[in-house]
Amino acid sequence: MRILGIDPGFATIGFGLVEAERGQARMETYGAITTPAGLPLSRRLYQIGTDMEELIGQLKPDVISIEELFFNTNITTGIAVAHGRGVLLYAAEKCGVPLFEYTPSQVKLAVTGYGKAEKRQVMDMTRRLLKLKAVPRPDDAADALALALCHARSMTSRLPQAGNVTETV
Amino acid sequence: MRILGIDPGFATIGFGLVEAERGQARMETYGAITTPAGLPLSRRLYQIGTDMEELIGQLKPDVISIEELFFNTNITTGIAVAHGRGVLLYAAEKCGVPLFEYTPSQVKLAVTGYGKAEKRQVMDMTRRLLKLKAVPRPDDAADALALALCHARSMTSRLPQAGNVTETV
Repeated sequence: MRILGIDPGFATIGFGLVEAERGQARMETYGAITTPAGLPLSRRLYQIGTDMEELIGQLKPDVISIEELFFNTNITTGIAVAHGRGVLLYAAEKCGVPLFEYTPSQVKLAVTGYGKAEKRQVMDMTRRLLKLKAVPRPDDAADALALALCHARSMTSRLPQAGNVTETV
Repeated sequence: MRILGIDPGFATIGFGLVEAERGQARMETYGAITTPAGLPLSRRLYQIGTDMEELIGQLKPDVISIEELFFNTNITTGIAVAHGRGVLLYAAEKCGVPLFEYTPSQVKLAVTGYGKAEKRQVMDMTRRLLKLKAVPRPDDAADALALALCHARSMTSRLPQAGNVTETV
């Protein structure tokens, strides 16, 4: 099963593709979509939508794992990210890819076993679970790989007796 | 100049088309796009995007006037509206229609002459300026017509000496 993790954003959208099979996960590719700060809001959103559609077309994921949005300190940034996330969900739906949403705590729990783990711990466990030499850059891409891993591990834990996890979704 | 006002939302998106020429504004049509509460988030966003594209194709506006988003009390609703607004801006950009954004205060000021006017005053002035017998329903559609009027009046006030307001954008 090809799981595309997406770290939603507006200026930078991280993505990471993981191939998960029989409880094992392998990193296929990762990176980030970025939009130039100088462009108008609507132009940047349009670029996010078309880039995401193109990415889905290239990577052909079976499922998308995307972070749920919480507003903490900066409402202005939060509004912009929510605009971008709306377009990302639109693009996923347009491409017909099933979507799963996870909270930051769910990702931390699935990847490190501890729902309040620090960001650095999550990144390091992501690196180790995917047998990578270094933590992927930018951070948004590492977060996206953690989201993909979260879905892979959630599938396994939901149906621990399943012989083939690709059948669980 | 055909001005399409849009009151952004997630469950209900109001729209109102106004034809503005030489300082006069005429209502052409209004209504609302609605999405069913039972559908998943991404499915509703996809519907918002495709419905808005279809609407723009039918109404052929020269310009879109859309409300800026402010978060007041309900953050959860705010996030959902921001998702929807992101898709609306994406659709406008995809259709190549120039966008103008106005704050609620700007709309109130342009329509009633008072930036802190009450909602009922704005609706009543919208009705009177467009020579309508009753305030349009739903409220979202009335808000959208106010946004279209706001753009029409902002154009005129910015260039009061202009003979033809269609040249000002």
